[in-house]
Amino acid sequence: MVDEAGSGISERLQRVEDELDILRLVSSYGPAVDAGDGEAAANIWTEDGIYDTESAVWRGRAEIAGMIIDTHEMVNRDDVAHVLGVPHILLDGDRAVATCYSRTFRRRDDGFEVWRLAANRWEMVRTTEGWRAAYRTTRLIDASGAARSLLQRAPDIDGS
Amino acid sequence: MVDEAGSGISERLQRVEDELDILRLVSSYGPAVDAGDGEAAANIWTEDGIYDTESAVWRGRAEIAGMIIDTHEMVNRDDVAHVLGVPHILLDGDRAVATCYSRTFRRRDDGFEVWRLAANRWEMVRTTEGWRAAYRTTRLIDASGAARSLLQRAPDIDGS
Amino acid sequence: MVDEAGSGISERLQRVEDELDILRLVSSYGPAVDAGDGEAAANIWTEDGIYDTESAVWRGRAEIAGMIIDTHEMVNRDDVAHVLGVPHILLDGDRAVATCYSRTFRRRDDGFEVWRLAANRWEMVRTTEGWRAAYRTTRLIDASGAARSLLQRAPDIDGS
Repeated sequence: MVDEAGSGISERLQRVEDELDILRLVSSYGPAVDAGDGEAAANIWTEDGIYDTESAVWRGRAEIAGMIIDTHEMVNRDDVAHVLGVPHILLDGDRAVATCYSRTFRRRDDGFEVWRLAANRWEMVRTTEGWRAAYRTTRLIDASGAARSLLQRAPDIDGS
Repeated sequence: MVDEAGSGISERLQRVEDELDILRLVSSYGPAVDAGDGEAAANIWTEDGIYDTESAVWRGRAEIAGMIIDTHEMVNRDDVAHVLGVPHILLDGDRAVATCYSRTFRRRDDGFEVWRLAANRWEMVRTTEGWRAAYRTTRLIDASGAARSLLQRAPDIDGS
Repeated sequence: MVDEAGSGISERLQRVEDELDILRLVSSYGPAVDAGDGEAAANIWTEDGIYDTESAVWRGRAEIAGMIIDTHEMVNRDDVAHVLGVPHILLDGDRAVATCYSRTFRRRDDGFEVWRLAANRWEMVRTTEGWRAAYRTTRLIDASGAARSLLQRAPDIDGS
């Protein structure tokens, strides 16, 4: 089944579904974290997926889930929200890169502050469970320039 | 017309269109409200749709439109913006749930403050007019834990 | 190849691909600007595309790229992030309008401030390179009411 442009309909549809699957995956992070559901949040990654931030690196779902649960209990409970922005998604077969900003808002007496603001690079892979994150890099917007370097890799699946 | 995976192309395409229709519907809320167009905003809901917040509940398009127009005239005019985040969308046939954060920014002398920050659950239904919201629940991020409870229901179409 | 509703599968799929292409285009703006990549950011526009703000108008990719590079070098370097919200996209054949909010966050000693908040109208056209912006209008949320006027045009491809 080939359309006029010579590209298979099913193949085109698959790419569209892939992009929406990745959008759904990224948009599930904030609600999972703010619900305190470390397992759901960690399930965004592959079993041995990595979450690499400027302050620490967590390896595998168990470490990621543990960190999310601990942080939620000790720091974030009910006065923090993790809001991920629109991911810029580039597909390349069974791999994809999604680049987006993340903000952590925190409740103050008279409203909310923007506590953290970071650039994110999600390196996604297609697995038998669906799309999952193999590697998420998050870098705070700050004078180190690390966020800028990460964003410079946005157009590039293989950027490193 | 069935593709290799045994699922109909038209059915798969319908799901993709549904997801984008819901994304378009949710993303129309902020512009409609900040344009002061209560009717356009209320038209996101079904005729008897409900908008349920921690401070009040509005029932039906007429009540919702009236509230939006009144608030826009009295409070929000030209110094406020309602920004809804990326919705996490789960489809189930003729129903769907979209979960997202909303922020109300307000102009200050030297920039903008994050005045309100809330978690939102949109319960959508397919109607002859297209997708519409049957029930929107909005809960402020605060010590009540109501936003957390709402977010815990994100993975579940029937969560209650 | 016509489905039960009488609308061609390929045509429906094209609309879905168009919408995702425009989403990808809009979401590339922030990362390109914050990476300091004026050329990538300007390439979102057509060769003679226009970027119209309340303070200045830039005409053509060269002017837009120059402004972005200058601003990044002088003002924004490493402590600013440009975060565009979910675009509300309306397609009409080879044209489209995408309406969204943009926020410029700026680093402070103790977190981040919302420095700028604006309404955006992207008038997109299909070109041989793919979708590009022919005209982007950005208006700050302020007492002028210009942002409100822009948002009132969101439901209308031809609004002016």
